[in-house]
Amino acid sequence: MRIFRREHRRSAGTQEVAPLESGGPFSTRTGAVARDLRRLLSESQVVDEPGELQTFAYDASFETQLNPRPPEVAVIAGSKEDIQALVRYAHERGIPVTPRGAASGQAAGAVAFKGGIILSLNAMNRILEVDEPNLQVFCEPGVVHAQLNAALKPRGILFPPDPGSTKMATVGGMASTNAAGMRAVKYGPTGAWVLGLDVVLPDGSLIETGSAGSRAKQSSAGLELTKLFVGAEGTLGIITRLRLKLMPIPPARAIVTALFDDLESAGRAVQETFAAGVSPSAIEILDERCIRAINRYRPGMDLPPVEAMLLFEVDGNPPGVRWDAEKVAGVVRPLAHKVEWSDEPQRIAALWEARSLVGAAIGALRPGSNRAYCGEDICVPVSRIPETLREIQEIGKRYRIPIATYGHIAGGNLHPGHLIDASNPDEIRRVLQVADEIHALALRMNGTITGEHGVGAVRSPYMRHEHGLALEAMRQIKEALDPKGIMNPAKLFPN
Amino acid sequence: MRIFRREHRRSAGTQEVAPLESGGPFSTRTGAVARDLRRLLSESQVVDEPGELQTFAYDASFETQLNPRPPEVAVIAGSKEDIQALVRYAHERGIPVTPRGAASGQAAGAVAFKGGIILSLNAMNRILEVDEPNLQVFCEPGVVHAQLNAALKPRGILFPPDPGSTKMATVGGMASTNAAGMRAVKYGPTGAWVLGLDVVLPDGSLIETGSAGSRAKQSSAGLELTKLFVGAEGTLGIITRLRLKLMPIPPARAIVTALFDDLESAGRAVQETFAAGVSPSAIEILDERCIRAINRYRPGMDLPPVEAMLLFEVDGNPPGVRWDAEKVAGVVRPLAHKVEWSDEPQRIAALWEARSLVGAAIGALRPGSNRAYCGEDICVPVSRIPETLREIQEIGKRYRIPIATYGHIAGGNLHPGHLIDASNPDEIRRVLQVADEIHALALRMNGTITGEHGVGAVRSPYMRHEHGLALEAMRQIKEALDPKGIMNPAKLFPN
Repeated sequence: MRIFRREHRRSAGTQEVAPLESGGPFSTRTGAVARDLRRLLSESQVVDEPGELQTFAYDASFETQLNPRPPEVAVIAGSKEDIQALVRYAHERGIPVTPRGAASGQAAGAVAFKGGIILSLNAMNRILEVDEPNLQVFCEPGVVHAQLNAALKPRGILFPPDPGSTKMATVGGMASTNAAGMRAVKYGPTGAWVLGLDVVLPDGSLIETGSAGSRAKQSSAGLELTKLFVGAEGTLGIITRLRLKLMPIPPARAIVTALFDDLESAGRAVQETFAAGVSPSAIEILDERCIRAINRYRPGMDLPPVEAMLLFEVDGNPPGVRWDAEKVAGVVRPLAHKVEWSDEPQRIAALWEARSLVGAAIGALRPGSNRAYCGEDICVPVSRIPETLREIQEIGKRYRIPIATYGHIAGGNLHPGHLIDASNPDEIRRVLQVADEIHALALRMNGTITGEHGVGAVRSPYMRHEHGLALEAMRQIKEALDPKGIMNPAKLFPN
Repeated sequence: MRIFRREHRRSAGTQEVAPLESGGPFSTRTGAVARDLRRLLSESQVVDEPGELQTFAYDASFETQLNPRPPEVAVIAGSKEDIQALVRYAHERGIPVTPRGAASGQAAGAVAFKGGIILSLNAMNRILEVDEPNLQVFCEPGVVHAQLNAALKPRGILFPPDPGSTKMATVGGMASTNAAGMRAVKYGPTGAWVLGLDVVLPDGSLIETGSAGSRAKQSSAGLELTKLFVGAEGTLGIITRLRLKLMPIPPARAIVTALFDDLESAGRAVQETFAAGVSPSAIEILDERCIRAINRYRPGMDLPPVEAMLLFEVDGNPPGVRWDAEKVAGVVRPLAHKVEWSDEPQRIAALWEARSLVGAAIGALRPGSNRAYCGEDICVPVSRIPETLREIQEIGKRYRIPIATYGHIAGGNLHPGHLIDASNPDEIRRVLQVADEIHALALRMNGTITGEHGVGAVRSPYMRHEHGLALEAMRQIKEALDPKGIMNPAKLFPN
């Protein structure tokens, strides 16, 4: 199957198409590389059996569903020494190295686009030390987000970034994409909670960012390398250890749900909430399609056919949370069709239900369809959310692809969900155009092509349009740290 | 007067001394440069009269008090076009450019150590746009922090980073040093609130970080250039505009003050507060010397002669703040000599008084003395604060220099205040040794040489000790973006 993708255009014009690059230059010597790596590491750490390599050919992106790309060799890292040995070897020979965590990413960031070696970090999943007095934790990159917070919970502490994929996503992957999640509006993205990183650089040397041996919570001893490696998606080096900042678990939460007859009122409700002096820990939006999907999927819910549903979460201590929730409900009530709030855990769970169902429910809009994860993660200014949601519906209509959109409205981060018949090449062609239009829309709205999922391979063609000249500065940094271009090539940077 | 500074040593040993570098290589052509710049910009923007250049020879560091370093030329920038023209000119000729805001820094970061041009950004002090619906503000680098928050206050919004020098510090300087301030423990340092920067690069080109034209609150379209220029202290380029994130002003605050007979109990009180699920917006510490100084300076205060005083601030909504304050008071009471709390504005002001007096009061410990700002900004793990405070006192005793220490204990950031007779060369020699010992102490405690003031010229000799191999990665980035080394030379990086 041949996949096309339109070049991003600032204005609508002719629809140019270009084949998406693929394939690796090292296939002739795969056998030798695997042999070398077995000697360098151990027999069981090196995978080169074609069937097994298929496991590493995918992430959660639509792109790799269409075009799986098995690497030539995969290596299961057990320690930073393994990684240093492997990277030194690859550096000498100019072999691409693509780091990989849970591969729950939707941007084809953890798949080998230029062949070479996949470096799996999943087995490096130990929580090394919880330093409770200093509210920080040291852990390996393969630790799964939910596993980390489960380990911290009995101590009453928390790593606040909270991706939807908590049960899959690794902290290494979260740092690499600067993942945000539902609570980023109050607590910031992953980067705000990373104090330091051990990183194997492209030449195999190991550095510690955020001051060597430090357990300080802050420092002005720049340059800020930590925040540079956060979000670099493995293009500058391999994270082998993370030092993360923690906070006490807020003792209380409350939820306000509100239904709106029109998108504009929903948008205004968000702005009025902030204007009332409340800083919610999350505000989630479900659009009209999501509401319809939930009603089909779970007929008992019986949501009215409104244009938008918002869920506000506030956290803090019990009386503070009650005050905030009442304030939000009071501000929202004149704008909404219906408002309800609660700080009782059981009722909170019930109110969250619609939101938690949405991923599964969307499919009900079109039985037998598949969700195509492409153009799935834009972020726009909060003031332009209503306009953006309408335009997304327009795009869906134009290409005859149903789209249901939900997301973290307080931060402007929207996740359009496109439903297609994956066996129909024309629909595939059309949904890729939809993704392209959505990326163009995000930029037109003064937004970004990715709010939290990262650039990977699939969004790299848009980087020039998003960043202009700043992309050249990024490239200079990339070339300074990785002159041979072996670290996760074909990611972040356009050709 | 000749100033010496010991090389940093990991262990106490012989006291090597080395002269601190000074002077610029361009003095012979100063006249020509000023002439060129007058042509390039305007007559009134260029200063080269020796008397006037003295104004630019200082910042608030002890180093420049001892060795003022006038630049060869100073330029008052009025626009980004001015800056681009100037930087292009300097780049062609390899002339150093040192950006300068309010020069309230204590690290000699805004003083020309290699001669060349001082680029004053103070006149670029316009708030360009408050985008209230999207909770962000666009402003020029010379905007003073207090001026910004005064302009935002009527709208009920806030730029949360809060340096002690709010009435002087510019937002450009705050971003350049990643300044933290009192409330960083809850809200993070300046960097957490910078969404994007316009930067003139060392070749004169202008980039916009954080996505060109974006008003989104978050993005994962790495590399994260914004956070790299934050804290770079002007060594990578000149910030010409900032896009800052804002939040609603919390509607309520409360203060808990507590006096402790021993430092260990004060340290434990901080940890117990977090363990109780409270996230204070600030926790400040005054040591025994500060308390003594306040009693002398304001006899009516009559503070008991205890080892430490803590001030906890909590913010949020009225009932939430009361709950938090009572919780803190309850947790702290068994550990403290005396505890008091209030959420009444007048009482809060009274409770804050001791803290607000401390800067002025310290001098009372030694009438006629001067405060030497050197070794004044370490940050250590919270668990090691008591030990660090004791060691600072030991150092003071050893070198016969009175030191009173206060700081942001929740983040581990300590400001030792050294009192000297500035006319006594032996005391000057000794206080520089004190600073050196304090920096060594910070690293020994797994801390950092600067929690919020930056590295500048005075702390650059310690960067190798603080960062090890990571310093080389920083250097590679510096060389990639500024191959001629014209941007604020002799800062951040050791020779």
